[in-house]
Amino acid sequence: MSRFFSDKYKSLSPYVPGEQPQDRKYVKLNTNESPFPPSPIAQRLAREAAGDLYLYSDPDSKQLAEAAAQYYGVGTENLVFSNGSDDLINFACMAFCDAEHPATFPDVTYGFYPVVCGLNGVPYVEKPLRPDFSIDPADYVNCAMTVFLSNPNAQTGLALPLSDVERIVRSNPDNVVIVDEAYVDFGAESAVSLVGKYDNVLVLQTLSKSRSLAGGRLGVGIGNAELISDIHRLRYSTNPYNVNRMTAAAGIGAFADVRYFETCRKAIMETRAFAKAEFEKLGFEATDSKANYLRVRSPEIGGKDLYLALKERGILIRHFETERLRDWNRVTIGSRDQMETLFAAIREILEK
Amino acid sequence: MSRFFSDKYKSLSPYVPGEQPQDRKYVKLNTNESPFPPSPIAQRLAREAAGDLYLYSDPDSKQLAEAAAQYYGVGTENLVFSNGSDDLINFACMAFCDAEHPATFPDVTYGFYPVVCGLNGVPYVEKPLRPDFSIDPADYVNCAMTVFLSNPNAQTGLALPLSDVERIVRSNPDNVVIVDEAYVDFGAESAVSLVGKYDNVLVLQTLSKSRSLAGGRLGVGIGNAELISDIHRLRYSTNPYNVNRMTAAAGIGAFADVRYFETCRKAIMETRAFAKAEFEKLGFEATDSKANYLRVRSPEIGGKDLYLALKERGILIRHFETERLRDWNRVTIGSRDQMETLFAAIREILEK
Repeated sequence: MSRFFSDKYKSLSPYVPGEQPQDRKYVKLNTNESPFPPSPIAQRLAREAAGDLYLYSDPDSKQLAEAAAQYYGVGTENLVFSNGSDDLINFACMAFCDAEHPATFPDVTYGFYPVVCGLNGVPYVEKPLRPDFSIDPADYVNCAMTVFLSNPNAQTGLALPLSDVERIVRSNPDNVVIVDEAYVDFGAESAVSLVGKYDNVLVLQTLSKSRSLAGGRLGVGIGNAELISDIHRLRYSTNPYNVNRMTAAAGIGAFADVRYFETCRKAIMETRAFAKAEFEKLGFEATDSKANYLRVRSPEIGGKDLYLALKERGILIRHFETERLRDWNRVTIGSRDQMETLFAAIREILEK
Repeated sequence: MSRFFSDKYKSLSPYVPGEQPQDRKYVKLNTNESPFPPSPIAQRLAREAAGDLYLYSDPDSKQLAEAAAQYYGVGTENLVFSNGSDDLINFACMAFCDAEHPATFPDVTYGFYPVVCGLNGVPYVEKPLRPDFSIDPADYVNCAMTVFLSNPNAQTGLALPLSDVERIVRSNPDNVVIVDEAYVDFGAESAVSLVGKYDNVLVLQTLSKSRSLAGGRLGVGIGNAELISDIHRLRYSTNPYNVNRMTAAAGIGAFADVRYFETCRKAIMETRAFAKAEFEKLGFEATDSKANYLRVRSPEIGGKDLYLALKERGILIRHFETERLRDWNRVTIGSRDQMETLFAAIREILEK
């Protein structure tokens, strides 16, 4: 830290992304990426945009908004795009949280929420998940705070049914409920249908996971036109041209290529079922995940030991040192081949 | 604005980007874009990255940092990248400005500085340019504030010599001087050479202008390793994967292709000399710009009238309604052909 760094941010704990080691070629099952390349249409449109990079991108991402509006069945005034959905989480925290509107979220969820609350000086209340890692909706009903609800929940993959999400939205009419649906396409119910009914729900999605664009950085916010205009206000005050031309083009292709999207997400869900059964055969507990990862725990080997033993064998999975997660690992659902490689390695480790 | 929008931001005045009308094909001389496509190497690398978008980008942009380190003659620890340089201006404002360290900049400069100060609740002092639009360095010597110095100055194109920039940096040892060099490659002296000598100078550059990547969004900050680590702290707290894979790849190509870069910036400087002479032949005043635009004023036609008459003819230039700029226009230096089209149109308008 330099001697010039403002006191405001001195106590900041920045987010720690999953490792991306470059020392060898790993089977990457640690950052919830898709094992599939982006849609061929998305790739083609992104490539075609490379020649036009001398011109600024459209600050309103109009064409992208039209493609997304058609997919979500909403108006373009209900949509805002960002450089990955982390950007939108930060904007939502800025826009809808302050000392009078503290934030609340589970104790085990996406680690970025407490980071952006810290950044913006927003007080927050973490509500413990139940012992089985599920969310008790009653914790958020009538809570009179700005709710960050990751659904399915980051880390656990467990999803709330839409009826519970709606109950939370309806019971907090004076606070915004931010439903972070980064992983929704792998089997959970989306809250996009609530956008027309309630003025206090903001749904966030990303093209990183189910649309294979993690490295393209494209997040989308869906909400009432007034909520969306609040986000635009902040966006135009920090980075009006926040979506670059190639990514906007890739996004248009990704929304248009519904068949490819369906094929990929189905494959992930099938491989997830296979992987869950395999883990259970090997004596692991595995959460009933609706996301593109499983949270698993072995009675025979600790989370850190498994992580290290797999890394040595060229396979990356995720381990967190926090109290509730220490015994567990988070394993991204890769291709069927990648999962076979993983299970062969785990068998070898357990037999030792 | 929604009823949920935090009081903190209710008085925000967002930035207004130059217009990007889609109703017809315009000769675009309004947003200081390059008339040349990106380097063929940059285009090729960007295209090649499209297939890998299913994987996150490197949050440290290591390969890009190596390419840039070579170009600037600094270490990779002296570099930080962002989604366009606006992002870095915001980070610098967050990191180095607060109630005890107010910001200062000219009254006529990049319009984004007061916006980010407003966003971050940072007090600021605007110092009037001299009547001829030049900066008086004495306004910033020993000023004990965080200085935002656009050099050459956005809006006017006038540049301070490096000796004046150094005097400002040296005389404010307890404040950071942010030298925004978005336009430096068109004839001004860069302050990058000060980075090794002073711990309080942060140089910001962009690949939008001289490297034809406006639509790719890539900004670069160059400074003492500690200043840079402050920016990383904020970056990791808002958007760790802020540079997407295709843009990072394009940046690597753009830094590597020195010959193309030199050809393009020389062409712009030659066309600027031609354009300045043409404007003067037509009776206009034109600033001695070291940027890829000229600020011009006609004794015969008002700034708004000229802007509107050209727009009607399919040519976009920029007009600002502020008191000091109202009589003037800002004209981007395009290709020689585009400038010939512009002057033919101006002649027609003046003859009417």
